[in-house]
Amino acid sequence: MDIDSTAQDKARFFAGAWGRVKALPGKLKAKVTSTAKSIKKLGQDDPRRLTHSLKVGLALTLVSLLYYARPIYDDFGVSGMWAVLTVVVVFEFTVGGTLSKTLNRGFATFLAGALGLGADYFASLFGKNGEPIVLGILVFLLAAAATFSRFFPRIKARYDYGVLIFILTFSLVAVSGYRVNELVVLAHQRLSTIIMGGATCMLISIFVCPVWAGEDLHKAIASNLEKLATYLEGFGGVYFQSSESDGMGTGKSFPQGYKSILNSKSSEESLANFARWEPGHGRFRLRHPWKHYLKIGALARQCAYQIEAINGCIGSDHIQGSEEFKGKIEGSCTRMSAECGKTLKALATSMKTMTDPYSSANTHVENSKAAMKDLKFALKAASLENADLAAILPAATVGSILVEIVKCVEKISEAVHELSQLAHFEKGTVEPTVSPEKPPQLLHRGIIQPVLDGDSTANDNVVITIHEIISTDSPENGKACDQHQVPKAGKKIEAL
Amino acid sequence: MDIDSTAQDKARFFAGAWGRVKALPGKLKAKVTSTAKSIKKLGQDDPRRLTHSLKVGLALTLVSLLYYARPIYDDFGVSGMWAVLTVVVVFEFTVGGTLSKTLNRGFATFLAGALGLGADYFASLFGKNGEPIVLGILVFLLAAAATFSRFFPRIKARYDYGVLIFILTFSLVAVSGYRVNELVVLAHQRLSTIIMGGATCMLISIFVCPVWAGEDLHKAIASNLEKLATYLEGFGGVYFQSSESDGMGTGKSFPQGYKSILNSKSSEESLANFARWEPGHGRFRLRHPWKHYLKIGALARQCAYQIEAINGCIGSDHIQGSEEFKGKIEGSCTRMSAECGKTLKALATSMKTMTDPYSSANTHVENSKAAMKDLKFALKAASLENADLAAILPAATVGSILVEIVKCVEKISEAVHELSQLAHFEKGTVEPTVSPEKPPQLLHRGIIQPVLDGDSTANDNVVITIHEIISTDSPENGKACDQHQVPKAGKKIEAL
Repeated sequence: MDIDSTAQDKARFFAGAWGRVKALPGKLKAKVTSTAKSIKKLGQDDPRRLTHSLKVGLALTLVSLLYYARPIYDDFGVSGMWAVLTVVVVFEFTVGGTLSKTLNRGFATFLAGALGLGADYFASLFGKNGEPIVLGILVFLLAAAATFSRFFPRIKARYDYGVLIFILTFSLVAVSGYRVNELVVLAHQRLSTIIMGGATCMLISIFVCPVWAGEDLHKAIASNLEKLATYLEGFGGVYFQSSESDGMGTGKSFPQGYKSILNSKSSEESLANFARWEPGHGRFRLRHPWKHYLKIGALARQCAYQIEAINGCIGSDHIQGSEEFKGKIEGSCTRMSAECGKTLKALATSMKTMTDPYSSANTHVENSKAAMKDLKFALKAASLENADLAAILPAATVGSILVEIVKCVEKISEAVHELSQLAHFEKGTVEPTVSPEKPPQLLHRGIIQPVLDGDSTANDNVVITIHEIISTDSPENGKACDQHQVPKAGKKIEAL
Repeated sequence: MDIDSTAQDKARFFAGAWGRVKALPGKLKAKVTSTAKSIKKLGQDDPRRLTHSLKVGLALTLVSLLYYARPIYDDFGVSGMWAVLTVVVVFEFTVGGTLSKTLNRGFATFLAGALGLGADYFASLFGKNGEPIVLGILVFLLAAAATFSRFFPRIKARYDYGVLIFILTFSLVAVSGYRVNELVVLAHQRLSTIIMGGATCMLISIFVCPVWAGEDLHKAIASNLEKLATYLEGFGGVYFQSSESDGMGTGKSFPQGYKSILNSKSSEESLANFARWEPGHGRFRLRHPWKHYLKIGALARQCAYQIEAINGCIGSDHIQGSEEFKGKIEGSCTRMSAECGKTLKALATSMKTMTDPYSSANTHVENSKAAMKDLKFALKAASLENADLAAILPAATVGSILVEIVKCVEKISEAVHELSQLAHFEKGTVEPTVSPEKPPQLLHRGIIQPVLDGDSTANDNVVITIHEIISTDSPENGKACDQHQVPKAGKKIEAL
């Protein structure tokens, strides 16, 4: 029996192995197709990746051909390979990255070469025996000091590569100097080939389908605002309607695009760092306030954190308490999130078109603040009738976080406005899309108010709003806008 | 008058300039002192930075000295400088980083060298005139394809440097092959000097004060849990007491350490990537589940987002509504956050000591869940009396987010428990610190219950808890723990 079972096992094993071998071509084919698909997807997601690859190939081939050509080769000798090396190491995806690396490499090589020459001369004063010892000590000290300097955040951010090349070149010059004895020629050759390679990279990256880090940063921030806007615009409808229909407000049908914003800090910072190396391009001047984008990015992240908290509340909305309460705050909450979404969309649009966002976004900010006040009234009105606090808590929390989001969006609006001043955005015109939605909102606010007859603030709110609509000259905007539709008294209403 | 004012201006200008010149030494001194201070601080923050700098200096000096020594030089020729270059480029702060770069560089050089030789042979078949053209095309194609492959997230994470070196070496071999005609010798020299430099780096980084990426990751995750714990443990006291004393619950006195967790993703990922290259070291075996740390890290970040939302609520706590309501939920909220903090602290401790966290952490998880239930009862009881919902909303929101945090902490606890099984942590003992705090909590829970006489779930909760305390044999723990203090019926209570 034992032997039989072993034989069976063997047969089974071989059958399995043969099956695997037979399946190999199929598997290989599947693997190849899946790889081809992912390559295609990678290219389609951002076609500039393909262009970048071709650009690197082009730069490398150009430099190699220069190296092949006899006359230049005779001038530069073996050090012509430094040109090849430079191209490979220096060519980055964005213009800013390439420029930053090229300039870092150029300056560091020059500085370290000069210092290396000095170190060689200094060491030679100590005679044949002392020279290697002195050079060894110098290399040790400089390498240690330079390596330590790379831990400084500022140096790390902007000059990390330069310091690396500094250590490299200094060591090479110090070492080869002891050997070759034609150091100045070598240093000159190295520097000129590096400049050759670097110039090739810079020219190709700037003039052949350039990818500007600054433009990428600008677009990334605008698209982040848009992602937040998409979530907030859809939020009210999905949250309140889904719970009405199926009694479960699951967070599944919400667009999850905002999640990418949560971890966007490092990529934004590196883009801003590269952008500062770039010359003026397109709509961006040389000293464009790139740092200010980081501020807007941080605020957008803040807003994304709040949305993440809301998303958590939605998923755990088991209690599904008083639908009645939800219905009461639905109007104001939906309006708050929708107006926040519209504000952000207006801000994103104004960034994309580089026009001043004041008139278009501010209206929505004011609307969202008015809705925020409505929510407070609704809460005050609702509290008298509702008995079960535990049941209404999830919805109330959503409202409460929405209030935070309104504040956050206002800050974002201010930051974008600040950017538009720093970067001299064009003055925009009032967008006509705003007006049709305003009257029903005023009407809606009017419905809630009678409940709170005794509340003087609420009355003040509307009275002053109407007053301001008539009297304000909107000096910040610089042009008379549609005054019957757009209340502009941001500060005064806020001060209430 | 004009002339007079101009003269005055001039005088003022020169006085100002002289003042600045006189102030220069002082400014220089201040600058030098501040730089010296920041250098000192940088070293004190992490003394390993200083060690690392010295290690780089040592490796570089060693390789340079090898290069100086005649006999070795005669063997390797000019390509000895590749050893220097390798050391500078390859030596990273962590062992994993150094190993990853060295191995990437070694394999890529070998592969690209072989391919370059093949390309050279292939191109030579096309005769003197065809050779550069064929080589140019080959360099273009390979450089473009390899550059494109760097956009794959997987390749980018692990083999980015290898691909770079592959392009570099292939181009160099292809180009210099056309020139030097002693390609095999050159390739052999280059490879052996790279191995020499790489081996020096690896040996020094492993045996001289090693900095293990894996250990760093382990510590970073544990310290992140601790930061969350510090916030949560302090939260209840500060939030509820500050509002009682000065009527303003500002977020200023809260420890803000958790904020660093919000943006920890990229550093955690790079550490995990490096850790996978490291051999077994200290308490970590070769195939330690490093990827699992990223899961815990993501959950900790999730928790930090919730805390960020709470922090936002606190700062905007203008209304300062019913202190009465705050007082009602104070007990359960404080206990929830304190127990979450204790859970996290226990998990952090268990990670640090590499013992199984089950017994110590689970008690606190159960306590926090019980407090969560208490909060629900408190809310149900409170709602009948309270009139102003808008006023109690901020505090209620804090409670609601704390509920989310409890859930999140439970997930973290499960993830750490999973890690402890994957990484074979030692079975821990029940910590004696747990027991003294339990009786008053049971008492406290008993106080709330009479209010809810009609609520059968609430009664079940306590009855079953006590029942389980007596009957459970705690099989998961593997040893009999202090049964009168620690209820273990996690799943059953949860299922209620």
